Amino acid sequence: MTQHPTLRLAHELLARASITPADEGCQTVIAERLRALGFSTETMVFEDTTNLWARTQSDKPVFCFAGHTDVVPTGDPLSWRFPPFQPTEHDGYLYARGAADMKGSLAAMIVATERFMAEHTALPFDIAYLITSDEEGPFINGTKRVIETLQQRQQNIDWCIVGEPSSTHTIGDIVKNGRRGSLSLSLTIIGQQGHVAYPHLADNPVHRFAPLLQRLVSEHWDNGNAFFPATTFQISNIHAGTGAGNVIPGELQVEANFRFSTEVTAEQLQQRVEALIAEAGITAKCQWKLNGEAFVTEAGVLLDIVQQSISHCTGQLPQLSTAGGTSDGRFIAPTGAQVVELGPVNATIHKVNECVKITDLIALTDIYYQVLKGFYAQLR
Amino acid sequence: MTQHPTLRLAHELLARASITPADEGCQTVIAERLRALGFSTETMVFEDTTNLWARTQSDKPVFCFAGHTDVVPTGDPLSWRFPPFQPTEHDGYLYARGAADMKGSLAAMIVATERFMAEHTALPFDIAYLITSDEEGPFINGTKRVIETLQQRQQNIDWCIVGEPSSTHTIGDIVKNGRRGSLSLSLTIIGQQGHVAYPHLADNPVHRFAPLLQRLVSEHWDNGNAFFPATTFQISNIHAGTGAGNVIPGELQVEANFRFSTEVTAEQLQQRVEALIAEAGITAKCQWKLNGEAFVTEAGVLLDIVQQSISHCTGQLPQLSTAGGTSDGRFIAPTGAQVVELGPVNATIHKVNECVKITDLIALTDIYYQVLKGFYAQLR
Ligand SMILES: [Zn+2]
Ligand SMILES: [Zn+2]
Repeated sequence: MTQHPTLRLAHELLARASITPADEGCQTVIAERLRALGFSTETMVFEDTTNLWARTQSDKPVFCFAGHTDVVPTGDPLSWRFPPFQPTEHDGYLYARGAADMKGSLAAMIVATERFMAEHTALPFDIAYLITSDEEGPFINGTKRVIETLQQRQQNIDWCIVGEPSSTHTIGDIVKNGRRGSLSLSLTIIGQQGHVAYPHLADNPVHRFAPLLQRLVSEHWDNGNAFFPATTFQISNIHAGTGAGNVIPGELQVEANFRFSTEVTAEQLQQRVEALIAEAGITAKCQWKLNGEAFVTEAGVLLDIVQQSISHCTGQLPQLSTAGGTSDGRFIAPTGAQVVELGPVNATIHKVNECVKITDLIALTDIYYQVLKGFYAQLR
Repeated sequence: MTQHPTLRLAHELLARASITPADEGCQTVIAERLRALGFSTETMVFEDTTNLWARTQSDKPVFCFAGHTDVVPTGDPLSWRFPPFQPTEHDGYLYARGAADMKGSLAAMIVATERFMAEHTALPFDIAYLITSDEEGPFINGTKRVIETLQQRQQNIDWCIVGEPSSTHTIGDIVKNGRRGSLSLSLTIIGQQGHVAYPHLADNPVHRFAPLLQRLVSEHWDNGNAFFPATTFQISNIHAGTGAGNVIPGELQVEANFRFSTEVTAEQLQQRVEALIAEAGITAKCQWKLNGEAFVTEAGVLLDIVQQSISHCTGQLPQLSTAGGTSDGRFIAPTGAQVVELGPVNATIHKVNECVKITDLIALTDIYYQVLKGFYAQLR
């Protein structure tokens, strides 16, 4: 029995224990395959992270496949059904760490590209690959820095499919066409410590915070829109007090997080919170951390082609979603690219016995192939 | 030079390292002195605590001196100017742990009683002593249990001076004629833990608490009265969160304390807080701890005599105050006794180099003596 080329490449990538931020040669394998197709490849090493930028060379608009070769740790390998870095086929599934997130997608992209380029010449667009080994880590030296480098060169990406496991039940049932933004706030309310018997000599920061807390949790930040639910604000941590029952605390520490829609920007949220603090008349220090702006890809060429390709291969139109955490799409979308995430079923990702249905990998290869054909038809 | 008998007795008591709840024989010294005056004495041992109840035996109304032989720990004795249990006179002060709080007062009471009884016979009232070794500790096996025992015997106290160091600048400048009540609340708000990206699947207890917090800190509990400032509510500790920035906490823990006037009772405060919680519609567990009900001794025989005695010895009328923490007066006052606290300057209590001005000890002896004479004149 001959193994499907996607499955064969998936095995080759999955056998490499590339726990984030390690790449373990995965990108070398990918780069060789792409060079064989005529791609120029460039390996960008930033600190502990290996990144691959590859593209066909012309002056056409750029369609990009994006993804990562790193995987999350396995936990105790003995708790796995099969050793996590010995990819194993069993009952129609391929088991290994990274099978679904996302070496399966990488294999499908390459094989789809190979098939497409074998059949099509004089492409009316360029194909590119942006691969990192830092997606599961701190997001510092990966896609973010590659995009910065490309921006300096005025190298744009017009359309991008990120191979993150977007599907929930069947392959292609969900496509992510955006992600909410994430903004973290660390708030310190300064009071004056004292004895509970002498509150007039102290200034209780918890009491000071009360009206502001009430304002923050009842504030209506926006209504969301067609693509996003309304922006949410959640306090994750709140701490004050020495432990003693007779001491008024001198300081209150509050950690909070916004998940926000494209109806507001991180900057607007910061300004609104700081205005509420000023209004409350309290002494507070704000530390902000922007984990990612919200982005959305609205109706257009990319979504059209992706939807048609999925429908062609599965008989079902995908649902669009912007739910879930962040992804590297947040670094690519702000350049003006249309970005969607389309990949395998995510039920087992970041868990023991991570696996992907073998027929899903084959279907995903076909979908990616149809996308390339769709662009060919659209732009020719 | 002959030593004043108060100073001599103070030395004897202060040389005993009676760190709470130890008595180290102090009460034996006191009991012997009182028996020599015709007092019946009874030592009540409850667990680790030694208590002395002594009284002259007739059926007259009872005037009681109350106090404690235990002292707070010294910390590092080497950081003291003089060894804390080698009472040392220096520059007009007597230095030792307990000099001001409150073995100096005990010595002054005994010497005042001896002088008074040497001069007066056929007393129109009984004199009693209630001494414990548990005032600086957990308040469980000391005055509280002695009072319970006396109540069972229907043994009442009509007037009581507690020798706590009430003075702030000069001896007798302040008399405490009551204390605020103290009530502690431990509040647990139950929510539902979850991920900040999916707040609709969680129930943030910090957000739930927001309107209740606002109500609690802005609530007007009472107006106080002539003897007490308004009742205060202070949050001493507030904690929620796992430390992770992306987790909505499942539980919020809040510790708070009331210092309350005689315009409300602990029970009323509990009911009002529980009504606010019910009104807020949140799931919360309340744990209450009553540290002491408020009490006050209003104008009457005891205050009259105490004020006149101080004025007689110092030329100044004392100020009445109910400020500060709790004292054993809270256990004696609820029996119906008039109670005041009158003792040395409290500037050095619970600190290194605790000391008392020697002339203050002599003056305090005179004041206590005048009080006894005042009752004699009043009741004869
Ligand atoms: Zn991933
Ligand atoms: Zn004391």
